[in-house]
Amino acid sequence: MARLRVHNFTVTLDGYATGTNQRADAPFGDGVDGLHAWMFATRFGHEMRGLDGGSEGFDQERARAGDDNVGATIMGRNMFGPVRGPWPDHSWTGWWGDTPPYRHDVFVLTHHPRPSFAMDGGTTFHFVPDGPETALRLAFEAADGKDVRVGGGPGTVRQYLRAGLIDELNLVITPLLAGAGERLFDDLGAGLGAYECVELVTSETVTHARIVRR
Amino acid sequence: MARLRVHNFTVTLDGYATGTNQRADAPFGDGVDGLHAWMFATRFGHEMRGLDGGSEGFDQERARAGDDNVGATIMGRNMFGPVRGPWPDHSWTGWWGDTPPYRHDVFVLTHHPRPSFAMDGGTTFHFVPDGPETALRLAFEAADGKDVRVGGGPGTVRQYLRAGLIDELNLVITPLLAGAGERLFDDLGAGLGAYECVELVTSETVTHARIVRR
Repeated sequence: MARLRVHNFTVTLDGYATGTNQRADAPFGDGVDGLHAWMFATRFGHEMRGLDGGSEGFDQERARAGDDNVGATIMGRNMFGPVRGPWPDHSWTGWWGDTPPYRHDVFVLTHHPRPSFAMDGGTTFHFVPDGPETALRLAFEAADGKDVRVGGGPGTVRQYLRAGLIDELNLVITPLLAGAGERLFDDLGAGLGAYECVELVTSETVTHARIVRR
Repeated sequence: MARLRVHNFTVTLDGYATGTNQRADAPFGDGVDGLHAWMFATRFGHEMRGLDGGSEGFDQERARAGDDNVGATIMGRNMFGPVRGPWPDHSWTGWWGDTPPYRHDVFVLTHHPRPSFAMDGGTTFHFVPDGPETALRLAFEAADGKDVRVGGGPGTVRQYLRAGLIDELNLVITPLLAGAGERLFDDLGAGLGAYECVELVTSETVTHARIVRR
């Protein structure tokens, strides 16, 4: 049965998934420089940027696992871009250049409708103003039997966690201290009671925790 | 030069140092059962309870390190006991039975004065109503050249962290999800900017992070 998964979701040692003051030239905000350095260092992170080389080992294995058998992605509006409110035009097409690394249908949660559009490499962005349950249904349809990944940001992951809809959350703790920002684990109420951590491994650079629904 | 250290301070994967509803029969509150199981499993944890056996390895090494060259301990009122407000009498002598494991002077931060008293094994409890700076001064005097440890709870550690007074914080992340409670990393403001994580190691059971002042 197709599953809803989160991968490589990275938080600081003090629990922050973003810093403060997120904006176009700082998608994750201030205070979290190097949050994803562990991933950029891997072969996966190199390939993502069209580079040769990169590290092998456990980080590479975990980074790569995030793409296995994933047929569609859901993300929040802020993960798609810095534009807030109604779309002034359709010029913003994501943070990822002409060839986004998704290569499948991506569903963006937003209160503001916008036509779908296709990018090079097989990524099509869709905009879902009808709430997270609708996005979930559309994503599973598009994934056609494969799993669906929730990309982020933290608010979007929390929304699905709180509802107990995520099957597997692969968390990365990087040894940085942000001091402020947005947490992943916050205001989850009883939703988190359905989950347990089944694996805790530290690589050369970060700690990987695998959290699954009981 | 004598240093101010925190050791084996354990938080859940979602960042909680205590659960909710702390009370006499649940010093750490609800939702955090097993928070210190990693330590109880070690030889150090066994010796602490007068038992033979216990695990060797990295957890044992880290648990044991918390006692090395420590000459005095500071703790908050709640770590000393469940009594709140003025002392109704002096019958409460801590959570640790007749022979507390400290075996040195322990300074308890409280707004409510109480005479010092000695327990078996070399532990003497002192009560400091004059604030954390005074406790720090008294503890370093008592430690007589050795280091001082801040035992807890989270509010007390935060108070010294916020002031940039802690030299070394040895944090343990245990793979539990509490969902609610009191965090260690919360409301630290710019205080945390002075610190960095210099070691991140996962044992068979938990992740140990060593955080030092730059």
